[in-house]
Amino acid sequence: MATSVNPSFLLEFLLRTGDNALILGHRVSQWCGHSPVLEEDIALANTALDLIGETQLWLGLAGEVEGKGRTADSLAYLRDAAEFRNVLLVERPNGDFGQTLMRQFLFDVWHFELLTALQESSNARIAEISAKVLKEVSYHLERSADLIIRLGDGSAESHRHMQSALDDLWAYTGELFLTDVGDDALAEAGIAPAPASLKPKWEATVSRVLGEATLRRPTDNYIHKGGKRGVHTEHLGYILAEMQFLQRAYPGAIW
Amino acid sequence: MATSVNPSFLLEFLLRTGDNALILGHRVSQWCGHSPVLEEDIALANTALDLIGETQLWLGLAGEVEGKGRTADSLAYLRDAAEFRNVLLVERPNGDFGQTLMRQFLFDVWHFELLTALQESSNARIAEISAKVLKEVSYHLERSADLIIRLGDGSAESHRHMQSALDDLWAYTGELFLTDVGDDALAEAGIAPAPASLKPKWEATVSRVLGEATLRRPTDNYIHKGGKRGVHTEHLGYILAEMQFLQRAYPGAIW
Repeated sequence: MATSVNPSFLLEFLLRTGDNALILGHRVSQWCGHSPVLEEDIALANTALDLIGETQLWLGLAGEVEGKGRTADSLAYLRDAAEFRNVLLVERPNGDFGQTLMRQFLFDVWHFELLTALQESSNARIAEISAKVLKEVSYHLERSADLIIRLGDGSAESHRHMQSALDDLWAYTGELFLTDVGDDALAEAGIAPAPASLKPKWEATVSRVLGEATLRRPTDNYIHKGGKRGVHTEHLGYILAEMQFLQRAYPGAIW
Repeated sequence: MATSVNPSFLLEFLLRTGDNALILGHRVSQWCGHSPVLEEDIALANTALDLIGETQLWLGLAGEVEGKGRTADSLAYLRDAAEFRNVLLVERPNGDFGQTLMRQFLFDVWHFELLTALQESSNARIAEISAKVLKEVSYHLERSADLIIRLGDGSAESHRHMQSALDDLWAYTGELFLTDVGDDALAEAGIAPAPASLKPKWEATVSRVLGEATLRRPTDNYIHKGGKRGVHTEHLGYILAEMQFLQRAYPGAIW
């Protein structure tokens, strides 16, 4: 049963979901040609392509919901930082391979739980997109969880890198579960799960994988937040400068 | 006695000179807030500001010579990579502090010799700009030469960093002295020295300072070239994306 909801709440949700995929996809694409081994280079490039593909679906729908003629492309390439709604986690620098991988894993678990819940959305378009994307994201999670375990429970050096990455990124995970009035309204209408409701399952998977990886779960509960409201770190500006150069320099250029 | 010269040769020279200052200035400005000690942070910021100020003079004159209504700002912010004429040396990544410093020193020696010669230019505007800028550049050179000596002839670690920086950058110095048909025409007309003519003095200063710094002058004479003809490394694209974001995203924005 779909109840009516303020369209601006729905737009906000779609931008958040699309921007998370877009910014993480761009970050991951920066590894192209630089990964430690060829297999990983190809795997990361595929992950980036999946995320960019997902972005087109969410931002395309966002443009329709907004109804002002903006498309997935114009939303991706012609907004400035304060209009982006991604969580700070996905704009964290790539760092070493361990940091990229840990960021991916922490995001994948959340992404998987979100899409699983969204398959039951009262909004048919959202349910349809989620079912499609979930197949790819299931594979992302399987892969990143496996690597976290292999590297965490690997050599002393790989363990140290993974623990350090986990310690650095932990404070950026809390934002994924922050819930505002718009989120509550969407949950009420059965359109999307309240972010907080995803936390128990996320915690369970993360704890299980970290345990197998012999990594210590940080205990500090401080949360870096702001991205979901458009308040970003300096990193996003550099990402956008690079990502948007072509459309900014050659407006309207197409393939 | 000023003889006439093809204006496109003059324009090319002004773009090269202005773009060298612009791209190095931007690179140096990227250190702002990140230098190893506060004194260096301020010194680098001042160097960057000097170079950007110099850029405005050369590119402003370039716009006048071209006569198509382009200004220093539009030349700096609205050209794409293939239209830039800076040498590859100045677009090299900042790397560690030693690499930034070595790049600065190798450039400063050349810059000092160029401006000294240009003070005698048959073109009064060029002579005037050069005399003004030379005061700042004399100080840049004094400072970078002093630091090269202190760090080269410093601790084992600082010596190792400086030698490594020198080895990495050496192959990018040769392009400074490459001379093409336009350079020959400008030299003939007394407008600018032939680049090759600056090499003996550059070599003398560099050899003296490296000697005092107990650094080994590389013997490989391979030359990475292309920048002066608009053929750049991937680094320039990223520099421009960042440097031009504001004018690209907000065309015509002014302070």
